[in-house]
Amino acid sequence: MDNFTFYAPTYFVFGKATENETGKYVKRFGGSKVLIHYGGGSVVRTGLLDRVKKSLEAENLGYVELGGVRPNPRSGLVYEGIRLCRKEKVDFILAVGGGSTIDSAKAIAAGVPYDGDFWDYYQGRVVEEALPLGTVITISAAGSEGSADSVITKEEGMYKRGATGEALRPKFTIMNPALTQTLPPYQTACGITDILAHLYERYLTNTKDVECTDRMIEGLMLTMLHEGPRVMENPDNYEARANIMWAGMMAHNNSCGVGRSQDWTSHDIEHELSAMYDCAHGAGLAVVMPAVFTYNLKHDVLRLAQLAVRVWGCQMDFGNPERTAKEGIEALRRFLISIGMPKNFGELGAQEKDIEKMAHSCCYGDGRTGTTGGYVSLNQQDVENIYRLML
Amino acid sequence: MDNFTFYAPTYFVFGKATENETGKYVKRFGGSKVLIHYGGGSVVRTGLLDRVKKSLEAENLGYVELGGVRPNPRSGLVYEGIRLCRKEKVDFILAVGGGSTIDSAKAIAAGVPYDGDFWDYYQGRVVEEALPLGTVITISAAGSEGSADSVITKEEGMYKRGATGEALRPKFTIMNPALTQTLPPYQTACGITDILAHLYERYLTNTKDVECTDRMIEGLMLTMLHEGPRVMENPDNYEARANIMWAGMMAHNNSCGVGRSQDWTSHDIEHELSAMYDCAHGAGLAVVMPAVFTYNLKHDVLRLAQLAVRVWGCQMDFGNPERTAKEGIEALRRFLISIGMPKNFGELGAQEKDIEKMAHSCCYGDGRTGTTGGYVSLNQQDVENIYRLML
Repeated sequence: MDNFTFYAPTYFVFGKATENETGKYVKRFGGSKVLIHYGGGSVVRTGLLDRVKKSLEAENLGYVELGGVRPNPRSGLVYEGIRLCRKEKVDFILAVGGGSTIDSAKAIAAGVPYDGDFWDYYQGRVVEEALPLGTVITISAAGSEGSADSVITKEEGMYKRGATGEALRPKFTIMNPALTQTLPPYQTACGITDILAHLYERYLTNTKDVECTDRMIEGLMLTMLHEGPRVMENPDNYEARANIMWAGMMAHNNSCGVGRSQDWTSHDIEHELSAMYDCAHGAGLAVVMPAVFTYNLKHDVLRLAQLAVRVWGCQMDFGNPERTAKEGIEALRRFLISIGMPKNFGELGAQEKDIEKMAHSCCYGDGRTGTTGGYVSLNQQDVENIYRLML
Repeated sequence: MDNFTFYAPTYFVFGKATENETGKYVKRFGGSKVLIHYGGGSVVRTGLLDRVKKSLEAENLGYVELGGVRPNPRSGLVYEGIRLCRKEKVDFILAVGGGSTIDSAKAIAAGVPYDGDFWDYYQGRVVEEALPLGTVITISAAGSEGSADSVITKEEGMYKRGATGEALRPKFTIMNPALTQTLPPYQTACGITDILAHLYERYLTNTKDVECTDRMIEGLMLTMLHEGPRVMENPDNYEARANIMWAGMMAHNNSCGVGRSQDWTSHDIEHELSAMYDCAHGAGLAVVMPAVFTYNLKHDVLRLAQLAVRVWGCQMDFGNPERTAKEGIEALRRFLISIGMPKNFGELGAQEKDIEKMAHSCCYGDGRTGTTGGYVSLNQQDVENIYRLML
């Protein structure tokens, strides 16, 4: 196991009606003037935004609003948020929504006290200072509610890139699984896929002897395999929603990823798809993951065989472990299809003619130096080959 | 799943030679005058204490020392520590040692700013204020390095009781698995047993539909089953030590215990044994656990059968799930014996004649009202019956 530090000081408030306590926690963590950041209609339509505002008012907290965050959140709104916060002397950012809203809020939080262009952070500069941030989550997916990460798309060039830094961890996160019951099934399934991807990206490691984090990841994957179909069958199943919500946070707060190299190839390759076609991140991952795992299969056959046996319930073929490893990938593919995810370029709305462009952007775009992948180093030709597996 | 809050803001510094950074983290978390609290010879003999002092000196931090913590730490030393801290105007407590040292340090940290008797906290008062505390751990066992809990034995009456409160979570914890390589095998095995107990105590729940935390617990148990024997075979196995160390922390920081009722019967029943005979807590648990689980077996046969199948690799007997559940308990018993733990009263040094007294203390001692157990409510007669199963 590699040396590491781990620090996850987010206060989680989990359960029914917890959004009504938002104001209390903003106050506890030092906020007095709040930016409420959100997306579009659903938080308004369901009355969630009103309940959150009421809880702020009950604590005599001032606030301004900035809605309009869209999936694959854009740099333009981040700049607008930074300007607004400076003008209104905002001292606390509150994200009400899903991963896109939280990521946009994190970018604003980092940008407000920073003299330079916030995009510097999305080109590798570590975020060491940010306004305090709280979240009220409305979908189990990104894990951004407990993570130190944010992903933003820069409109100029359509680069989708990530930033990281302990200062980006939310001070608190309100998690009411009931808020996710109104999600369309497709979005629920995208969230399940994203959570599985966060687990796969950590599972694919070159660090030896990481049984503890392996077992934690496997446990969280098994949770998704058990609870995912339950919630697809019955969207009102609070208990299944609750299990998925906690698993989604645990999958990405990195307690199951410490001390080991990680992959993030599938995310990098997917980001090009969602930047290019504006498809849902989870849907993109559903198409990308089986292709990446198949392409990298021979790098460590026994690791994928272990996953196939322990998580997907495959029989180990001791004479031919590669067969078992492949069986595990097929089981993942079938699972994703069963919850309604797309299985190829066509279903995603992607086009073969763009492959070269995306592969180039993935390996060279916005300052990159020719490769991607933490598990297997891949060049542009490899990435093109992987995209072709998705046709 | 029940509503809950979860907040674990401990900064973990994990890996080789990390003890040399102790001073840096004391400073980061606001300490200027430190109480170094430790046990006996080993931290002196191995040079650890010197390395820690050197790291404090490098940051120009003042310190005083209080050694002499013993297993099953006592209230007497806590009172001494509180007096010393007040006299020396200590503003940070540093525990260098195992669970006993950390628990004693927590009691001192809570006691210093408190006007009343610190023992109030061990009779149910929640700790809401304490001096900041850091730890350098030397054994994987108690999980106190990441928990909000502390257990102390009151010399008057020999009551062993626990306190809790978010203020007790360490600000930072230094985790160098190499420091545990010099432990005697018996102590290593006691630690493994304690970690397993923390997982069982959370697994035995009356809350339905807790797949996520079930799976996390199972994953951590499987880690112990895999890594425990490796470290017993080769005490110098750093990798196995590292996996056990992270599992021990995760087992008890409660991320795998949220939103569900927990048990803690085995701990309550064991505490009487270690208070009476001063045996090692882990050794006591090894004798207690199979007895408690057997006694409570019929309360929820399928829960124990699930554990037997998923963790102990038993075949499910669908015609007779009770047989499977029992098989799981037997597998636990065999595992504990295999790592050198005692299996009955005699091997523990306990005596049948004390059973009534211990059962009475467990149910009525120090303000208790006649029952124990979070999973099955047990009266004095039940507890006596359980002790008799250990003969």
